Amino acid sequence: MNRIPVSSPASVTVFRRILTHGPIGRVDISRATGLSQAAVTKAVTPLITAGFVVEDDELRSTPVVGRPISPLAVARDRAHIIGIKITAERTYGVLTDLAANVLARTEEHNASTAVDDVIAAATSVVDRLRDSSPTPIDGLGVAVSGDVDREGGMVRDSPLLGWKGVALAEALETATGIPALLENDVRALTVTELLFGSARDASSFAVITIGTGIGCGIYLHGKVVEGAHGVAGEIGHLPLGPRDAVCSCGRRGCVEAVASTPAVLELVRAGHDDPSITTEDAFALAHDGDPVARRAFEQAGEVIGSALAALVNLVGPETVVIAGENVTEYDLYANALRTAFSEHAFGAASECDIQLRPHRFDDWARGAAACVIEVIAGGLATQAA
Amino acid sequence: MNRIPVSSPASVTVFRRILTHGPIGRVDISRATGLSQAAVTKAVTPLITAGFVVEDDELRSTPVVGRPISPLAVARDRAHIIGIKITAERTYGVLTDLAANVLARTEEHNASTAVDDVIAAATSVVDRLRDSSPTPIDGLGVAVSGDVDREGGMVRDSPLLGWKGVALAEALETATGIPALLENDVRALTVTELLFGSARDASSFAVITIGTGIGCGIYLHGKVVEGAHGVAGEIGHLPLGPRDAVCSCGRRGCVEAVASTPAVLELVRAGHDDPSITTEDAFALAHDGDPVARRAFEQAGEVIGSALAALVNLVGPETVVIAGENVTEYDLYANALRTAFSEHAFGAASECDIQLRPHRFDDWARGAAACVIEVIAGGLATQAA
Repeated sequence: MNRIPVSSPASVTVFRRILTHGPIGRVDISRATGLSQAAVTKAVTPLITAGFVVEDDELRSTPVVGRPISPLAVARDRAHIIGIKITAERTYGVLTDLAANVLARTEEHNASTAVDDVIAAATSVVDRLRDSSPTPIDGLGVAVSGDVDREGGMVRDSPLLGWKGVALAEALETATGIPALLENDVRALTVTELLFGSARDASSFAVITIGTGIGCGIYLHGKVVEGAHGVAGEIGHLPLGPRDAVCSCGRRGCVEAVASTPAVLELVRAGHDDPSITTEDAFALAHDGDPVARRAFEQAGEVIGSALAALVNLVGPETVVIAGENVTEYDLYANALRTAFSEHAFGAASECDIQLRPHRFDDWARGAAACVIEVIAGGLATQAA
Repeated sequence: MNRIPVSSPASVTVFRRILTHGPIGRVDISRATGLSQAAVTKAVTPLITAGFVVEDDELRSTPVVGRPISPLAVARDRAHIIGIKITAERTYGVLTDLAANVLARTEEHNASTAVDDVIAAATSVVDRLRDSSPTPIDGLGVAVSGDVDREGGMVRDSPLLGWKGVALAEALETATGIPALLENDVRALTVTELLFGSARDASSFAVITIGTGIGCGIYLHGKVVEGAHGVAGEIGHLPLGPRDAVCSCGRRGCVEAVASTPAVLELVRAGHDDPSITTEDAFALAHDGDPVARRAFEQAGEVIGSALAALVNLVGPETVVIAGENVTEYDLYANALRTAFSEHAFGAASECDIQLRPHRFDDWARGAAACVIEVIAGGLATQAA
């Protein structure tokens, strides 16, 4: 990957600030990062020389004393990235510039979840987006749910895709000719929130995704929590559900076992003894006041609210963003969620700012692109291929 | 407080390395911290000048080329600190040197939990330890359970003491004439583990304390997690207990409601309809196979095991240290704890290294002293009085 020649951690810090808050003056970078103005200037120089940062002359101001000052901005057109999000049914892709602005999007049906079929769909998505790019593509970010070995580019275990031990990054590099970075999808979304979302000024935050699975990304002390053994943020597998509920992971009492979209659907189908009910039917039934459907969504809300309380009681983030494709139906479980959260959040932890953010799959794909931008910026250079 | 003149964050990092791993050579400090040898030398010079770090001439070695090299050690006698741990019944105190070696200990019965009575006991403890110190006392660390405002020196809410809004640091400074640093007791114990315990080389770890309360300190990305709203590590208040169990905090279903020592005792008393049963009686009954007592401890183990799984699933620490005064009776609930943990730990999170560490109250007091040493070392200078 075409990396910025980073000479120091200060360069990474400065580049990230320009990326998230640019156009921004050197004084403001100094204030926000705690670096001296001399250190900011030293860090910026190689970024400008390499063409990744530009002085924004349109915003130039002339101080009373001294020479004119131009704020700094990321050179958006300097690199182009493709991010894709793979789900069991479809592969979604976006083309972005170096500032993660989405320039084009597309999606493709997967013929099946077989690895070859998904790679075919992903390659088709990449080829279409590549045609829209004004420059060669600098990197491909790939977001997949499950246990992902980022450094090895390996999907260790993705229950939703039915994959174990798939060397996806290498396969996609071979198919597309673009350096690929594999990332857990919730972590990708967390990076998007960190760089461009409402959490970009939070000292700590968590993103909870509600949908086919229930996941969580946690940002603390300047980094996304990875887990010493590669597992973290598994809020969907806290044992807060009913003890008799069996999860898709095989364990009992997991949050996901009653609160994921498929689990709610299963409860509605069982309650009506009708396996033909679809997710859309379940939403419609609940909106129409059907007691079985309402109860299923309320139980999901209760368990998610308890999980949210567990999260804030343990790590106390400043902000929690609730996201995911199911959030559009949030009103079906919002009350139960808030009640359970209030009951169990401990003391000042309940002051945590909880925000709702409906994400489309494109946002996950953009997150995968944002992870590549982080690598290009050198922030994670040691971890990436 | 008599702070080391710290010129850079590198000095703090270097001092901490010498504190935890000294006597240690400059090359090894460089290797462990990632700082260049020139940066280590630059950081060490003011520490030596101020007398906080010494060259250990007894361990001097003469390389084939160049001048003799002496490893660096903390100048233990350069400062003396008193740490105290306040419980409802007694106040425990230790005198330590700058390397947190315990030089003397004492304890005192509190006449009551009234603030004045506790301050009287604490003053008596401090006076006795001061008499044992070869130099004037440089700082007083105070560990108290509950919600503690470290910066303001204020006990916001300590249910075990029945205190709300007590300006304890100032009161103790007035009574003893020593600058005081107030600290939540679990955080103090976490700092001890971080600096001197088995977790000192772990990239991340958590300490869970089991006793009158159930608490948790989490160390991630180089810092103890504080919580954006001042609350973190409240593992005792995760809603993993039976829904009908009422906690001392007023909430339902908390871990503490069935797994704290008083909660287990209450269950044994209720089962035998005998309010005169003591904690020691309950331990004895359980060891003798009394089914009521055994079931009470097993339930505690199950709930703590689930809480431990929730912790590792969310934040994935490398190591968990289980500590506290109740740990001596760990065999009464160890099996139930491990079974519940195995059932609910997700994937590789179950590889977390779980260690058992019986702590005495002296260790908590030493933790309070260690927090003062951190302040003296400048690492937390901005947060302390």
